[in-house]
Amino acid sequence: MNGEGLYLLEPAGKTFKLQFKVLKVYAVEKTPHQEMMLVELEGFGKALVIDNFIQSTEADEAFYHESLVHPAMALHPDPVRVLIIGGGEGATLREVLKHGTVREAVMVDIDPVVVEFSKKYLEYMHQGSFNDPRSRVLIMDGLRYVKEAPSDYFDVAIMDLTDPYAGDVAKPLYSEEFYRDVKRVLKRDGVMVTQAGSSYFYTSEYDYVLGNIGRVYRYTAEYNIWIPSFGLNVNFIVASDTYDPYSLTARDFDERLATRGVKTRFINGERYRGLLAIGALRPLH
Amino acid sequence: MNGEGLYLLEPAGKTFKLQFKVLKVYAVEKTPHQEMMLVELEGFGKALVIDNFIQSTEADEAFYHESLVHPAMALHPDPVRVLIIGGGEGATLREVLKHGTVREAVMVDIDPVVVEFSKKYLEYMHQGSFNDPRSRVLIMDGLRYVKEAPSDYFDVAIMDLTDPYAGDVAKPLYSEEFYRDVKRVLKRDGVMVTQAGSSYFYTSEYDYVLGNIGRVYRYTAEYNIWIPSFGLNVNFIVASDTYDPYSLTARDFDERLATRGVKTRFINGERYRGLLAIGALRPLH
Amino acid sequence: MNGEGLYLLEPAGKTFKLQFKVLKVYAVEKTPHQEMMLVELEGFGKALVIDNFIQSTEADEAFYHESLVHPAMALHPDPVRVLIIGGGEGATLREVLKHGTVREAVMVDIDPVVVEFSKKYLEYMHQGSFNDPRSRVLIMDGLRYVKEAPSDYFDVAIMDLTDPYAGDVAKPLYSEEFYRDVKRVLKRDGVMVTQAGSSYFYTSEYDYVLGNIGRVYRYTAEYNIWIPSFGLNVNFIVASDTYDPYSLTARDFDERLATRGVKTRFINGERYRGLLAIGALRPLH
Amino acid sequence: MNGEGLYLLEPAGKTFKLQFKVLKVYAVEKTPHQEMMLVELEGFGKALVIDNFIQSTEADEAFYHESLVHPAMALHPDPVRVLIIGGGEGATLREVLKHGTVREAVMVDIDPVVVEFSKKYLEYMHQGSFNDPRSRVLIMDGLRYVKEAPSDYFDVAIMDLTDPYAGDVAKPLYSEEFYRDVKRVLKRDGVMVTQAGSSYFYTSEYDYVLGNIGRVYRYTAEYNIWIPSFGLNVNFIVASDTYDPYSLTARDFDERLATRGVKTRFINGERYRGLLAIGALRPLH
Repeated sequence: MNGEGLYLLEPAGKTFKLQFKVLKVYAVEKTPHQEMMLVELEGFGKALVIDNFIQSTEADEAFYHESLVHPAMALHPDPVRVLIIGGGEGATLREVLKHGTVREAVMVDIDPVVVEFSKKYLEYMHQGSFNDPRSRVLIMDGLRYVKEAPSDYFDVAIMDLTDPYAGDVAKPLYSEEFYRDVKRVLKRDGVMVTQAGSSYFYTSEYDYVLGNIGRVYRYTAEYNIWIPSFGLNVNFIVASDTYDPYSLTARDFDERLATRGVKTRFINGERYRGLLAIGALRPLH
Repeated sequence: MNGEGLYLLEPAGKTFKLQFKVLKVYAVEKTPHQEMMLVELEGFGKALVIDNFIQSTEADEAFYHESLVHPAMALHPDPVRVLIIGGGEGATLREVLKHGTVREAVMVDIDPVVVEFSKKYLEYMHQGSFNDPRSRVLIMDGLRYVKEAPSDYFDVAIMDLTDPYAGDVAKPLYSEEFYRDVKRVLKRDGVMVTQAGSSYFYTSEYDYVLGNIGRVYRYTAEYNIWIPSFGLNVNFIVASDTYDPYSLTARDFDERLATRGVKTRFINGERYRGLLAIGALRPLH
Repeated sequence: MNGEGLYLLEPAGKTFKLQFKVLKVYAVEKTPHQEMMLVELEGFGKALVIDNFIQSTEADEAFYHESLVHPAMALHPDPVRVLIIGGGEGATLREVLKHGTVREAVMVDIDPVVVEFSKKYLEYMHQGSFNDPRSRVLIMDGLRYVKEAPSDYFDVAIMDLTDPYAGDVAKPLYSEEFYRDVKRVLKRDGVMVTQAGSSYFYTSEYDYVLGNIGRVYRYTAEYNIWIPSFGLNVNFIVASDTYDPYSLTARDFDERLATRGVKTRFINGERYRGLLAIGALRPLH
Repeated sequence: MNGEGLYLLEPAGKTFKLQFKVLKVYAVEKTPHQEMMLVELEGFGKALVIDNFIQSTEADEAFYHESLVHPAMALHPDPVRVLIIGGGEGATLREVLKHGTVREAVMVDIDPVVVEFSKKYLEYMHQGSFNDPRSRVLIMDGLRYVKEAPSDYFDVAIMDLTDPYAGDVAKPLYSEEFYRDVKRVLKRDGVMVTQAGSSYFYTSEYDYVLGNIGRVYRYTAEYNIWIPSFGLNVNFIVASDTYDPYSLTARDFDERLATRGVKTRFINGERYRGLLAIGALRPLH
């Protein structure tokens, strides 16, 4: 019968919820930081759920991870050392390692259990990237890492963190201070990108992020992409002092990815330009 | 208390649902064709709901109606006579009438009750467009209208119809035969556009529409836009034998709208180009 | 399609909810005290909903109102003056007035809007009882009424109030002090009854009520009855200093109702005895 | 956050649903006959869910199993051989074995996986009763068993089967032919009992069962009890050619249970009489 059985109720935006049919529950684990579930959702395949928010599903995670990683990576002419903060599932790492230029990818995640959970259950996400000799996974607070790590080291920094509207725990991860710390560990021509929540549903939180990045970098660009299983569009902000995202042509984007051996399922140069052209979606007045 | 009271459960995609908090129910009416409700949804304001599908909400209807109307209207250098099939709320008509070139806008809707309902309750949608001297509203089956109306009459035809995946009633409204009939009532350099459901969730239904239009017109372009209260992206297809959508520059788009006195809240030339660049989103493989 | 459209989500017990299909919304009104809705629920007909709790539905309200009124009324050999506190829908009043012995029924409800709402929309509930010459409706706080009304006046007092677990507003309405005040306005052989929430789901709140009544009256009896649209059993406590509920036989119960011209749909003497025999349902250990 | 995470949506009655918060999913198994889940429900503890219907929860299963088993067992003066059809969880068997008179309890369940599932996960239900030397568990169709088993063998037959409104699979299990077969395997003074669904929500299905039993036995008695996690009252029908359920006094009931060493949490002689007095609850007219 329709409308019966096990369901996942997930908040979308501030005021409504998504109701997914749960076909199977593979694993549930609690950590001091969060509660994780791996479930099978009708229409989306395997889904990682943390604190009742879907993080990613088999069917559509590439929209998210490709949009997060490749614009920043393509913007840099030669990304050799890459820092990932968050991203415990390993899919961001997976996309980074596709770039043949990369010789070192440091992933810093606060929660050891998420990483263990991923290694154990989310092969379809990390696809072995944790075992790539270029990968180094550190279990520590990203806030502390960017205070303590050496300066002028990374080419690209990718923030794959809890949403900026997720409360007190999120705020420092999107603060001006944090962005200054990230900048310090980047080389002078470094590029950073962060997912930035929802400019439509959480406008003031988004503007807080945008403002902070804007005060730290010369060039910033906004874009957003619909993630079907989120029921909403996710925003991203990419920034650099040296490279202007709007100067990267569709052709350059495609050539850089091709040269580095990167194969994608969604993003390409033309779509990169399309995303920048659309920018952020805000409430209409 | 959270999670209690009146809710609207609406299907999104094939496999999940959206759950909205209903703050108020203004009106409910049944017709032989459909059931209409006007409700107040938390976070979205007034919402028109037909057969349990949200048609439009105060907060975000402009994303939909601007994306449906202005690309086709801008693509035509001088749209004087415009045909709208469906669109009973009057918001598509409202956007069409913004173009100062328009001297006649014919709206054909099958359901008299929807139009009466709109006149009575949806002032925020039609904003008086039903009373514009340039408007003519016909209550009849759009399928019949395009068979019986004179040839070579309209400059632009806009299809604002039930979703292509809405079952048997929808199929003829997206058939090759229908598109040939629409073409007959258009002038030789006419432009048509239709909303086309969801290329992500209803791929085969979408491809049926795309294929049918592709067989009838020389130029077609696909685009899609996220509608927050739908929880998903809606697809559109614009087509013409004379004007190539990809040849219309952002600057031309903006100039045409400016010249005709059109003010918008979401769409502009750059976003038009961005939407075309992204095209349709399909399941990833 | 199943599982779509307008729904009422109502808490049942502390930990789960009932989801009803709403077929129609007749009226919604807010007062300083509460929010009222009259809706049509699939399977239950018209339903009055206050603060998202179903108060009564057309289909099953008689289970509640007959169980509340007739045990106390039957226990008294000659109920002439009856006090109702709460009961704004008028259905408790309707049941009281069925007893031919009654010459005066005073109903005290705090919320004028509820009573107006009932008169306007709930004819099926009050069935004209507000217009019975024996009825007197006072809009005032029941707590104050029983402090200020004359002593030794009523034969039966019926409390049809918000649930004892409804928070701070409820507590005084189930306090020992309140029961002493009620007793003062009753004659020496008076009988009182109150609905008492849920002994299964809100055991400590129920025990608070039971203890308070037990300290004020010599005889008390507990009973409960399933109300289908509540998804749970509602408890009642009847008390008196003179009449022992367990001494009233099924035959006496039936005879008293017959003599007074009372016709019922659910309660009768045998079921009265059955309800007392089952008593209150508590969590099992 | 409230209203988020994993939920179980379960139908209650024909027209509404219960929504439980799922705290944990212990196991999910599919068989050719049905799909089983063991989950932890907020407020109810462990719950066995078959085909999305809650079968029993830790917190309230005793209401059901005591009400099913002990009235029939107490009605028989010396139940030595007992037949259970269905009851795969082992809790009905557990209650039967409490009666010291019992020397053989045959449980016939069609689905081997349910029984294995119970042995593996539902220790709190069967409490070792599968290992009692008096127990014999047969995996076969109950319909066939009562056709093939020897005549005049059992003292009591207890039917713990899928609901009579569960569709085509249920109908033969509540047919007159089945009751005649059951009667054949009972001794002449045998007693049978069956759960009988919901006389309130599924009246015609209930009347079908009641009519069939009434044509086969001289004495029948109806009763029903609220099961909190079902959100509704479950009906039972007990029948015999020799023993009239209404002749068994509360005292006899208590004495027989005491003599046989049976300890209960809900049922006792007085409540047995109360249940019979209330009988079946039907829609009110």
